[in-house]
Amino acid sequence: MMNYNEYTKEGKTMLEKVKRFQNLLKEKHIDVYYIPNSDAHDSEFLNDCFKVREYMSGFTGSSGDMVITQDKAVVWSDGRYFIQAQKQLEGTGIDFYHLNDKEYPTIEEYIETNLPENGTLGFDGKVVKAKWFDSLYKQLEYKNIYYAYQSDYVNEIWKDRPAFPMSKAFLLDVKYAGRSMESKLKDVRKEMNKRNVSRHILTTLDDIAWLLNIRGKDAESNPVLLSYVVVEMDRVILYVKEEKITDIKSYLIEKNVIVKDYEDIYDDVKTFNDVWIDYERINSALVLNMNTKLHKEVTCIEMMKAIKNEIEIKNSLECQIRDCVALTRFMKWLKENVYTETITELRAAKYLNDLRREIDDYIEVGYGQIAAYNENAAMMHYQATEANYSILKKDGIFLIDSGGQYLSGTTDITRTIGFGNVDKQWKIDFTTVLISHAQLAQLKFLEGCSGMTIDIIARQPIWERELDYQCGTGHGIGYLLGVHEGPQGIRWYKALNRKEDTILKEGMIVTNEPGIYIKGSHGIRTENEMVIRKGVKNEYGQFLYFETMTFCPIDLDLIDMDTLDKKTRLWLNAYHKQVFEKLSPYMNKEEVEWLRHYTREI
Amino acid sequence: MMNYNEYTKEGKTMLEKVKRFQNLLKEKHIDVYYIPNSDAHDSEFLNDCFKVREYMSGFTGSSGDMVITQDKAVVWSDGRYFIQAQKQLEGTGIDFYHLNDKEYPTIEEYIETNLPENGTLGFDGKVVKAKWFDSLYKQLEYKNIYYAYQSDYVNEIWKDRPAFPMSKAFLLDVKYAGRSMESKLKDVRKEMNKRNVSRHILTTLDDIAWLLNIRGKDAESNPVLLSYVVVEMDRVILYVKEEKITDIKSYLIEKNVIVKDYEDIYDDVKTFNDVWIDYERINSALVLNMNTKLHKEVTCIEMMKAIKNEIEIKNSLECQIRDCVALTRFMKWLKENVYTETITELRAAKYLNDLRREIDDYIEVGYGQIAAYNENAAMMHYQATEANYSILKKDGIFLIDSGGQYLSGTTDITRTIGFGNVDKQWKIDFTTVLISHAQLAQLKFLEGCSGMTIDIIARQPIWERELDYQCGTGHGIGYLLGVHEGPQGIRWYKALNRKEDTILKEGMIVTNEPGIYIKGSHGIRTENEMVIRKGVKNEYGQFLYFETMTFCPIDLDLIDMDTLDKKTRLWLNAYHKQVFEKLSPYMNKEEVEWLRHYTREI
Repeated sequence: MMNYNEYTKEGKTMLEKVKRFQNLLKEKHIDVYYIPNSDAHDSEFLNDCFKVREYMSGFTGSSGDMVITQDKAVVWSDGRYFIQAQKQLEGTGIDFYHLNDKEYPTIEEYIETNLPENGTLGFDGKVVKAKWFDSLYKQLEYKNIYYAYQSDYVNEIWKDRPAFPMSKAFLLDVKYAGRSMESKLKDVRKEMNKRNVSRHILTTLDDIAWLLNIRGKDAESNPVLLSYVVVEMDRVILYVKEEKITDIKSYLIEKNVIVKDYEDIYDDVKTFNDVWIDYERINSALVLNMNTKLHKEVTCIEMMKAIKNEIEIKNSLECQIRDCVALTRFMKWLKENVYTETITELRAAKYLNDLRREIDDYIEVGYGQIAAYNENAAMMHYQATEANYSILKKDGIFLIDSGGQYLSGTTDITRTIGFGNVDKQWKIDFTTVLISHAQLAQLKFLEGCSGMTIDIIARQPIWERELDYQCGTGHGIGYLLGVHEGPQGIRWYKALNRKEDTILKEGMIVTNEPGIYIKGSHGIRTENEMVIRKGVKNEYGQFLYFETMTFCPIDLDLIDMDTLDKKTRLWLNAYHKQVFEKLSPYMNKEEVEWLRHYTREI
Repeated sequence: MMNYNEYTKEGKTMLEKVKRFQNLLKEKHIDVYYIPNSDAHDSEFLNDCFKVREYMSGFTGSSGDMVITQDKAVVWSDGRYFIQAQKQLEGTGIDFYHLNDKEYPTIEEYIETNLPENGTLGFDGKVVKAKWFDSLYKQLEYKNIYYAYQSDYVNEIWKDRPAFPMSKAFLLDVKYAGRSMESKLKDVRKEMNKRNVSRHILTTLDDIAWLLNIRGKDAESNPVLLSYVVVEMDRVILYVKEEKITDIKSYLIEKNVIVKDYEDIYDDVKTFNDVWIDYERINSALVLNMNTKLHKEVTCIEMMKAIKNEIEIKNSLECQIRDCVALTRFMKWLKENVYTETITELRAAKYLNDLRREIDDYIEVGYGQIAAYNENAAMMHYQATEANYSILKKDGIFLIDSGGQYLSGTTDITRTIGFGNVDKQWKIDFTTVLISHAQLAQLKFLEGCSGMTIDIIARQPIWERELDYQCGTGHGIGYLLGVHEGPQGIRWYKALNRKEDTILKEGMIVTNEPGIYIKGSHGIRTENEMVIRKGVKNEYGQFLYFETMTFCPIDLDLIDMDTLDKKTRLWLNAYHKQVFEKLSPYMNKEEVEWLRHYTREI
């Protein structure tokens, strides 16, 4: 990560950089240049070498695009980043516009206004989504615009650009993946047949990793490999830098996977016929290079990947136990040492990660860990840094949202841990969150429900108190892949580019993570993973239920007995009984006694 | 209502009738004739004179269309009617096809297959929806079909057709309606201006009644007037049979409403420009007669009508009390007399209706009353008839779903009343339904929720027991209008032609009516009306809550104390306290004592 303070101190440097780029635009006769915050694969988390908007503006937010004309520059982002963007763009001469605010022009309106008739719009088509471009193209048809879409001009001035990620691919054995590549390919080809297409282009990295049973380390905490795949009826082509696949070469040969250079796909697609593309996510350069009828539909892999097979579920369940043993040890350590040692948020997070590192099939830490004391926990995306962190005092609560990447799965768990004197109201909040969590965990529902229709089961106790956690209740999760994986999600409305209206199916894994966040005071979240299971099928339909996968004490020190209802109390006791049974075999005598106390019946 | 037994006894007569019609088709060179089960206004309930499909087939179901070719005849309907249709169509030579079943061709497929190139499709365009026709037209474009859409040929052979309804229109004073016609027109015209249209055609009868503050009695228990309205910027045209408006003529003159004959609209529309039509509901004859650019969007009246004004709400609240006094008297009568008198389902229903008839501003009974003993109550749409009813025995439960049409509103309430020995399991079911009902009644939710996203709050206790009530949890309700009124509805999915995804707004009225229905054994439902109110507005958004409008004892004899949770018990006690306070002033001493007992704290 770059340190944005550099830029704010050196707004002038940024100003000069933008001017240099604007001179380049004049030289190349580009009227408007568009820079999205994206890579060629529509990835959630960008490798540093793809952070072009960040380089050109100094704004480091995870979301927001940029437009540069020959004499102006604008960055757009949403409410989360208004304050940060203002700071980071100060003195740079770059304007900041609010997204989704009628007071400001949209990106598309701004591009339209600033393009003259017969003008030229420049962009790197590889990082611009095809669907967005098609819509813009229609909007601007009357202006007869020329599109310079093969122009990554920022590259020409970006001298110290981070290197293209060159991690080594590794194999995920079928004993972990649960299904062979052949078996998955068979299903994909069946779907291709149904749609009468001869090729399916895959551009999203987790879909490729899932299909080929391979992984890499090209993105931070997201074990994927920068590549494209074309599935044909009798062969598979993997487009990837050759140096990266040395360790899996024999596997690819054995499986008849043809390997071509990462960039070759852009030429190859020119001759393709009858192609199935995932139109919501493919980049525009690929689509602009094609001259064939396109079947535009989300890839069938999205749903195949979301519905975990029994081996993936079994592995994940075992993995969660080992992961939870680490977290439980951490809880014990924290509660026992916070009074006598100096524990910072950073040290606490490191202590837990070190415990995870000892686990057998550990690959790396999960993305977006949050370790936050008291009021810091009220900021949902708080990140302690060397420059900015808190020390845990003798009284208070500590929220830790973390997980690991293992050969046997991806974990994501949050616990809020108390010590010393904790305010009665904070305990009431903790208990409300527990009630929310338990209500969702116990839900039985008819097949046909989506995350949108069940969300309120978790939200109701919090809404009853006229509070809201203002984020989803839960998200899907990958298997040694993204810690956020679609399409399913639990939220009462459809968020932008999300699919919370996806019907929930047996085998999907979702998180259950309601919370209460009181600005400037404290934040509480209790998060487990759950897998959807089939229950009774009767005249009313197929019932489904959640099987909780995560077993780690929910801090009894933070329960407010006055507001805990009977049903939740019984659920908690039953849950803690399971926690003890599952974790104690992995613990020493002292740990077992601690666990017995913290999983006692209340 | 016709008695369908006539037809089943006389399948041969029906056969001859169809043959006579087929001869007519040959004579007129019509290859295929389509008969939907509809009137010109897309009404929920058809007047007998519009029951063309019933006349031509003998099938009396409330849903299902018919297609007649020169040598075949087919009726389609859904699962509710498979058994009934089979009986009623026996011996008629008419085939029965299941709707939404891939084993059978759809109506559109059947029409396509049976139409030769350059063939002719006949139908009465006034009763065929425009949207359906447009889609069929596209589907058949390649066949170069001629559409004889002004051909109500069934009329030519229907000698004893019931007369066109000629009820007298009456005025709904602004003290009831809460807003004047002018005020409503102003809002409608504002919406027309926004859309740049010069005319808005209204074809749905409740929209017309609402806008003009008039009512009629042209449909059973639905106080509407068969008419069309065209709203222009400076005048309003009401198309209606002149004899029907004698009582409101001076009102219409005063309000500058131009009156034309009911049928005149079909000629008038030929010259219209820039028209706004409610494309989902308008009939095809109107649209086919127009030669202008159409603005196709649901009428703005749908939402204006759904959001009740404060006077409508105030009137309804008062109306509900008088209505509930009647129902409470009925409960007392039933519980006291069922052991000694012969009470049939029909007598019970009549007793209650007679009590309602005594209420000041009573207009008529509400539509679709259900009075059902024990296992009959398990049939959600059970209707006791002179030919088929049950006598209430000394033990059991009686479900009554009823309401009235009043100048001060439309009521819809269900109570399940017990007497004698009632099985423990039935009481458990009653208590589960009560918990469901109370959970929804107590919900606080953020603005933005739809009926789809909140439904599960009511359904959860019933799903937990692996049961389901297989219908909506609640529906909107009119003001002296339809007992089912859109667009809002509470159900976890969007039903066909329904809009449960409508955002719930302050002032909307919905019913709260979960139930348990055990086939062959018993049925339980507890239904109140609720109005949506604004709660706290804070950093999280605008909270909304439900204010219960219906105050009538929920039978304490049917509560199972072992399964009643504390929260529901407290809700019930608070509710019953209000019931006593609101109803007792209208009751005599003996009734008050009874009410005190049946609203006691438990």
